[in-house]
Amino acid sequence: MSDDKNIVEIGLLGCGTIGSGVFHLLEKNSPYIERVAGKKLRVRRILVKEVDEPRPFEADRSIMTTDWREVISDDQIEIFVELIGGIEPAKSFALEILGKGKHLVTANKEILARYGPELMKVAAESGSQLLFEAAVGGGIPLIRPLEESLGGDKIRKIVGIVNGTTNYILSRMSMEGSTFDEALESAKRLGYAEANPEADIQGDDAASKIAILSSIAFRVGVTSDQVPREGISRIRLDDIENAKELGYAIKLLAIASFDDGEIQARVHPTMIPLEHPLSSISGNFNAIFVVGESVGELMFYGQGAGSLPTSTAIIGDLINIARDMDRSKTIDRSYWNNPAKIKSINEVKTRFYMVLRVVDRPGVLAKIAGVFGENMVSLESVVQKGIGEEAQIVLITHEVKERNFWAAKQGLARLEVVLDIPSIIRVESL
Amino acid sequence: MSDDKNIVEIGLLGCGTIGSGVFHLLEKNSPYIERVAGKKLRVRRILVKEVDEPRPFEADRSIMTTDWREVISDDQIEIFVELIGGIEPAKSFALEILGKGKHLVTANKEILARYGPELMKVAAESGSQLLFEAAVGGGIPLIRPLEESLGGDKIRKIVGIVNGTTNYILSRMSMEGSTFDEALESAKRLGYAEANPEADIQGDDAASKIAILSSIAFRVGVTSDQVPREGISRIRLDDIENAKELGYAIKLLAIASFDDGEIQARVHPTMIPLEHPLSSISGNFNAIFVVGESVGELMFYGQGAGSLPTSTAIIGDLINIARDMDRSKTIDRSYWNNPAKIKSINEVKTRFYMVLRVVDRPGVLAKIAGVFGENMVSLESVVQKGIGEEAQIVLITHEVKERNFWAAKQGLARLEVVLDIPSIIRVESL
Repeated sequence: MSDDKNIVEIGLLGCGTIGSGVFHLLEKNSPYIERVAGKKLRVRRILVKEVDEPRPFEADRSIMTTDWREVISDDQIEIFVELIGGIEPAKSFALEILGKGKHLVTANKEILARYGPELMKVAAESGSQLLFEAAVGGGIPLIRPLEESLGGDKIRKIVGIVNGTTNYILSRMSMEGSTFDEALESAKRLGYAEANPEADIQGDDAASKIAILSSIAFRVGVTSDQVPREGISRIRLDDIENAKELGYAIKLLAIASFDDGEIQARVHPTMIPLEHPLSSISGNFNAIFVVGESVGELMFYGQGAGSLPTSTAIIGDLINIARDMDRSKTIDRSYWNNPAKIKSINEVKTRFYMVLRVVDRPGVLAKIAGVFGENMVSLESVVQKGIGEEAQIVLITHEVKERNFWAAKQGLARLEVVLDIPSIIRVESL
Repeated sequence: MSDDKNIVEIGLLGCGTIGSGVFHLLEKNSPYIERVAGKKLRVRRILVKEVDEPRPFEADRSIMTTDWREVISDDQIEIFVELIGGIEPAKSFALEILGKGKHLVTANKEILARYGPELMKVAAESGSQLLFEAAVGGGIPLIRPLEESLGGDKIRKIVGIVNGTTNYILSRMSMEGSTFDEALESAKRLGYAEANPEADIQGDDAASKIAILSSIAFRVGVTSDQVPREGISRIRLDDIENAKELGYAIKLLAIASFDDGEIQARVHPTMIPLEHPLSSISGNFNAIFVVGESVGELMFYGQGAGSLPTSTAIIGDLINIARDMDRSKTIDRSYWNNPAKIKSINEVKTRFYMVLRVVDRPGVLAKIAGVFGENMVSLESVVQKGIGEEAQIVLITHEVKERNFWAAKQGLARLEVVLDIPSIIRVESL
């Protein structure tokens, strides 16, 4: 602890896009933050990979070090901010910090989504605070409202657009008629997609985020390996056009629900009605739709990434810890160690959009309908498009169990008249 | 205080729509709330006007009384929930409760918007908590996120649809082509409008709410008498149709901004672009759009009224007080006693939509344009509609100071060729 009781010493682990933003805001808004927190927040040490790296904002190089021990072992530091990302060494650092009774603010969704129960346990045992508003939805206040403002309500469902990169790509395909590859290139040029965007595109990032949100909202431990996921790389421009004609938008959604003690969480591209508030969330914005038993429908919307928005969330957490520093109690997250009872995705009921390229011949539709019938899948709409070699069938099923739909799909793939099944997308009314 | 340290005794002042909802949720979710709060919340006494009134939810009549002294003077009660509404006796009760060092949760926007500084002062002096998440936006978490999650950012602007009644009326006019009177009748039938809906229709309710939000967001005392307001009763179906043609929706907005140390807050019907997220908020929903210097654009959306959504916010506040009961510090709201420096609405710059009924004669437009020119008002678009007795001019100005616009309007009203000016609505890009 600092000699001056009015100063809270902070250690930054990582100083890239977000870390340098945090340093910048702490300096720039210093008198303002001091007034709100009741204390001065001062960065004492910064762990970096290289002191001379380029950064979006300048940070004080005289307090930088490339030796993690110099930061982690500095006993004067009371709150650490972990912005390294990834599993190791972030996880070991986090456990060491929490184990020593120091407080930790992190934006690291991977360690929370994979090792949340372990981290919460160590924090509880040593009376440390572990806050992570920035891990989901960037600057959007989400974790605290779910945990505190809605603490007396039972959350039933969360449906979120929680990945800005994929939402930008889908918006651009929808609005400009770009192909997936063109939209991805544009996202990279604008800095919305990383050089290696696989974790975003494949839905892994969204899966980590919905695991964290589910844990908080349903008060039980959900880990990312319990979240089945499907990415957006197979979405074709044709699907987006078809969806529009049918009155839908295609969004990569993270969906979690709590029913009869069972949790179901998943990430996949979804067709949602154009009238639903989530369908108009465009570009790299995030929006999280929450349904509570008493509060009804809520939606939180904002910048889900970016240096300053994310830094704002981290500073909000820092202020909260600083304000509460003389308090012995921490938020009780022991529930995170109660493993969730997960409902298998096979048992989930949803509707499906499907496109089949078919041989243009009388009787084809009857054969296809037959396979669906055998598998107890009934159809809501069927349209034949194109003729000859272009012939395809675009259909939407009624609500069916995933298990039955996939059985039908296997049967269809075996039909001689079905040349190819280029698209399958889930359809939700929400 | 209760003998059992694990029980927090609550006094309900008022048991109508919201009060009975609070009682109902505290009973129904009792084990759940106890787990979250770490303590049991028990209603000890309820102040009512009449014990046998009809209520949306049943409450325990054996603890009801019509004598306020029996509730306010009960020393066992630690938290009071004030749901009486209006200024008196609510204000006197609030001051007495806070003065005794007891905690208060209130949904009363009027006393907060008019006597906020006084209430905060008394609370601070006696170390009481005063929470009011339910006063603005019903069940939408708003006060706490602004105050805590965004504590390190400087909020620049708040634009809200904060009154469900008027939003329902405007939505219905827009979607069903109802007149104002028809839509108001329908709102009354559905219970969205009160028997005397003047405070909603005239913008008074929204003015109180934006005064509270401004105080929290800008950390200074703003009172409702500092908020100029204009209601929606003059909005014609024609205006809504014209707005659609021009690419706008008409919403009753509460707008507050902070610039150069000056605050500007106002409530009026506003034409906003159809692409703006607020334009698609329909029915009796509320949505509050917030712009922070670092966090960028945020929006919070949900049920702004209703028994259970509003009760959820109150229970969130109760849980927060119960959790922090053994803590000596309260949230510092001393800033509420710093009077805001208010920018006069005369100096505000905005665009205006205006409809003039005119004599259908050559040269009319030149005369009108001349008056605008003399007052330094330039026009963005001018359309003549109808001929003969139906002739009217529909125009939108460029951005002008309010002062100049109203001077021009006076000049126009004096022109012999102008028969009538049926509509003037502000236009904002946001």
